[in-house]
Amino acid sequence: MKESQQSYQRYPRYFRVLRTLLVNGIMKVSSVELARHLNITPSTVRADLNRFSGVGQQGYGYNVKLLYTGISRELGAGDNMSAVIIGGDAAFAKRLAERFEGRGVTVSCFFPDIGEDDGKTGSCPITEISRYLSEAPADIAVIVSLPEGMSADTLVSLGIKGIWNMTQNDIIAPVPVINLPVGDIIMNLCYEIRRKEAEAHEL
Amino acid sequence: MKESQQSYQRYPRYFRVLRTLLVNGIMKVSSVELARHLNITPSTVRADLNRFSGVGQQGYGYNVKLLYTGISRELGAGDNMSAVIIGGDAAFAKRLAERFEGRGVTVSCFFPDIGEDDGKTGSCPITEISRYLSEAPADIAVIVSLPEGMSADTLVSLGIKGIWNMTQNDIIAPVPVINLPVGDIIMNLCYEIRRKEAEAHEL
Repeated sequence: MKESQQSYQRYPRYFRVLRTLLVNGIMKVSSVELARHLNITPSTVRADLNRFSGVGQQGYGYNVKLLYTGISRELGAGDNMSAVIIGGDAAFAKRLAERFEGRGVTVSCFFPDIGEDDGKTGSCPITEISRYLSEAPADIAVIVSLPEGMSADTLVSLGIKGIWNMTQNDIIAPVPVINLPVGDIIMNLCYEIRRKEAEAHEL
Repeated sequence: MKESQQSYQRYPRYFRVLRTLLVNGIMKVSSVELARHLNITPSTVRADLNRFSGVGQQGYGYNVKLLYTGISRELGAGDNMSAVIIGGDAAFAKRLAERFEGRGVTVSCFFPDIGEDDGKTGSCPITEISRYLSEAPADIAVIVSLPEGMSADTLVSLGIKGIWNMTQNDIIAPVPVINLPVGDIIMNLCYEIRRKEAEAHEL
């Protein structure tokens, strides 16, 4: 299942593994070692990294630094994208923001659910979102919950270029959308647990 | 990309769409309509639902109720799985718990990060997790952060059957694991935004 994903979806994992190797002073890595770190096959690693010409040599391994630079460039690390978080509460937004900043994405503002705006620095009333975005455009909207009367299309018309949807309803928009409903993920996990139990029972 | 996913990974989305149809009193649905709701092709819908024999008829459509029952059974809705949430704070855990309960998964306890245990109902000190699980087993562990000295293998030895990993490090365990590092998701979204911009630039 993992193997059939497109290689660019694995780039952030390569990015993490390579960064750890660099931090530990490791300058060469084989496809077998990378495969072990990523829990995929060495042939998938070789296919994934095929486009980064000049960073690897048969029987010699990959140059960790060159590969890290190539993958960082592909991922646009350093592009300084900005994001707003819509819905949720301040504690959740703060956690997300910390993780995003580690990947070069700055959270410019978060809009807690109505009634939860505690006036802390960095948060704005959710009713102000249209005005805020028209004055201070952002690249990404992370939607925990969407206020009444607000749609993904409105956000796109306000300049949003990509959406990470955490609500229970799929969003279809003319920009890249990652739909990740929490309820669906937990159901998929339950399904895999049951399938594994059924397999064990059949043996 | 969506199309290449295994069909069971789409079951929770069918589940949501079919539930909405039922609530609205719609008893028949065509593969074309389902495809539109799910943003996939009608032929993928037909392939996905091929195994639910007797619920559909060429040129007539699917029986919504039978299909909903079949998919619910496949997903194990009603199996009453239990979960614990490890790390994070109480507000985040409360939100997750609400979403889970809508899908039949009960959060039996959450273990906020050290220093954040506010003694509210439903939370326990994170240092008590081993003792808690050995006394009150749970099926699923949602890991927001893993305390020092605790590993996924320890959780499995304490009876955990599936893991949803939200930390920055991939987890490999002898049970089903869904690795969803927040940093990777935001990087994938940045990548898709940049790719779309590059395509538009080339036109």
